[in-house]
Amino acid sequence: MKFEIMRDRLLDGLSDVMKAISQKVAIPILTGIKIEANEKGITMTGSDSDITICTFIPAEENGEQIIHVFEKGSIVLQAKVFSEIVRKLPTNDVTIEVASGLQTQITSGKSDFHLIGSDAEDYPILPEVKDEYSFSMPSDLMKSIIRETVFAVSQQETRPILTGVHWESKDGGLSCIATDSHRLARRLTVPENMPEIPFSVVIPGKSLQELNKILPDNTEIVNIVIADQQILFKTRNVLFYSRLLEGNYPDTSRLIPAEYKTSLIVNGRLLLQAIDRASLLAREERNNIVRFSTNEGKGIEISSNSPEVGKVEELVETIEVSGEELKISFSAKYMMDALKAIDGQDIAVHFTGAMRPFILKSVEDDSILQLILPVRTY
Amino acid sequence: MKFEIMRDRLLDGLSDVMKAISQKVAIPILTGIKIEANEKGITMTGSDSDITICTFIPAEENGEQIIHVFEKGSIVLQAKVFSEIVRKLPTNDVTIEVASGLQTQITSGKSDFHLIGSDAEDYPILPEVKDEYSFSMPSDLMKSIIRETVFAVSQQETRPILTGVHWESKDGGLSCIATDSHRLARRLTVPENMPEIPFSVVIPGKSLQELNKILPDNTEIVNIVIADQQILFKTRNVLFYSRLLEGNYPDTSRLIPAEYKTSLIVNGRLLLQAIDRASLLAREERNNIVRFSTNEGKGIEISSNSPEVGKVEELVETIEVSGEELKISFSAKYMMDALKAIDGQDIAVHFTGAMRPFILKSVEDDSILQLILPVRTY
Repeated sequence: MKFEIMRDRLLDGLSDVMKAISQKVAIPILTGIKIEANEKGITMTGSDSDITICTFIPAEENGEQIIHVFEKGSIVLQAKVFSEIVRKLPTNDVTIEVASGLQTQITSGKSDFHLIGSDAEDYPILPEVKDEYSFSMPSDLMKSIIRETVFAVSQQETRPILTGVHWESKDGGLSCIATDSHRLARRLTVPENMPEIPFSVVIPGKSLQELNKILPDNTEIVNIVIADQQILFKTRNVLFYSRLLEGNYPDTSRLIPAEYKTSLIVNGRLLLQAIDRASLLAREERNNIVRFSTNEGKGIEISSNSPEVGKVEELVETIEVSGEELKISFSAKYMMDALKAIDGQDIAVHFTGAMRPFILKSVEDDSILQLILPVRTY
Repeated sequence: MKFEIMRDRLLDGLSDVMKAISQKVAIPILTGIKIEANEKGITMTGSDSDITICTFIPAEENGEQIIHVFEKGSIVLQAKVFSEIVRKLPTNDVTIEVASGLQTQITSGKSDFHLIGSDAEDYPILPEVKDEYSFSMPSDLMKSIIRETVFAVSQQETRPILTGVHWESKDGGLSCIATDSHRLARRLTVPENMPEIPFSVVIPGKSLQELNKILPDNTEIVNIVIADQQILFKTRNVLFYSRLLEGNYPDTSRLIPAEYKTSLIVNGRLLLQAIDRASLLAREERNNIVRFSTNEGKGIEISSNSPEVGKVEELVETIEVSGEELKISFSAKYMMDALKAIDGQDIAVHFTGAMRPFILKSVEDDSILQLILPVRTY
């Protein structure tokens, strides 16, 4: 294998692949990156068994020669040291050559590195994913869906299925739900060309977080292919594989209240900032609970107190209030996460009593729903 | 105590004082900030016993009213929660009032905080520092001196005196020396109005690092006042006190060679980058040693190797070489620290043999000297 490549392009590709690399892997070769070169370009693969990322750099793009492949071939190089070397090379021209055996020479300017590689034959084979169930959506929409749900997955391994986000076909659309059993985030959307046969998969939250870092902030189309134990996200030059979680996701539909006793509309940003301030004192007590009460149509009073540090009270103006007066307490963190997910618009909050879950929605748009279980303090 | 203040100005002052605050203090009241208000303005004090920072915000500045003091007085508030509250207040107008007893009310917009304060009478009294030995220099020069020496202090407590930087009057000027016994950094300068009676003090490295964060990047004059166990750095609105280290600093003058066997001049930035690359493989072995050899006038060869990972070689062009051929090995980290301190100019490196300390200087300027002890590998 021998090729010459622009360092900046190699770095871009590496930075994607590195997101799958972990130093804590059971198979030692997975601390490496597999590099394959042929006349079309080079392909790099990184994996931690759960996530596998494959990136392709074309030899030519828009008439510009990015890579000269002199000899095709493949090698596995230590991911950490290889990416650090590439980052610090003195010029933008890099030549990578597997010289004798697995010895790999990396040359740039007057720098000359020799790395001891591993045989690419020993690298695990990519999971085979058939294009049976597949659909697609723009990258920026995919990123929103991830951002609006993934924060609500469970951080505990006691119920492993809850560490994932449940993606399910529903009424011709896609429903994405995450819950840690104290709060729930749901996002509905209608992707293009949904498969006709219904599907239901649970994607590890960690995989979606890494995918979110790789996806571009634009309307480039992402193809989603679902197989038995794997899901594959395809963009033009990147393949992102994640294993799926096994088991049945709990039915959460009954949790979501359909009737409300108190409803209000409030500016999401103002409410978020007030909760953030109130949580400063709540945090000192380590429970992070704030109190929330309607105030005879004047607004909402947010308060918290910590006997040793002090207390805080703040009035937040409401745009509209209807129904019964209410006093309720909840986790400031859950409320802030939910408000950030709905992001700044006017928000409708619907309650069915101080001890029942309450929901938050955007006033303009029904596609996002956030649900929070209150805490008993009054 | 009651005053109204612009939040931004309060935040600026707080960010200085917070640099002295530590959660690990023996005296509980030192987790707080002392606030004193009188008709001239407010003074805030933070301390961790080793460092004490005092900042003054004037009631009026350039004709602009910054603070309205309604009632003078003082209080101690929990530093962490107070600074977080101020940072998140909804408007730029803040009123702080000690209401009943030690209860302190912080109001801004519709936010209303009550913090439980402590009695300012219980706060330790500032050390008294007489203006006996004092001199001054511009803030940006002081920052350079700190940056060029403090990295070389010892990180180990086995010889506590080496964790400080030795400031000493010498030939009408100031000599600043730091060493961890493997390398040494020396900076000479001639401040204004040096005291006639000689002095010699050792300032904790940590204090200088914190001072460096607070000092402005401009020519504002810093007054340095030296007392028995304290040193005080004064700028217009900030007082920075540090304790001094006790004990005698070792005599380092004999370490510095006066005759050289090999000398070379090289571009500091190119050498730094080459060492940085070579250290990528050196680091894998955890000893971080690179080899350096002259190459018959063609330049310097930098190399390192790690049996399990690979090796690297690089030729760095020299501007001038004189004396014997040389092969030497040293810590890449020490070399990089020294080159960063001299910062990018053409650098003279003088050797007296493979097992003797060598020195680095700027070609233009004799005021900075960096010394490194080599390591035996050849």
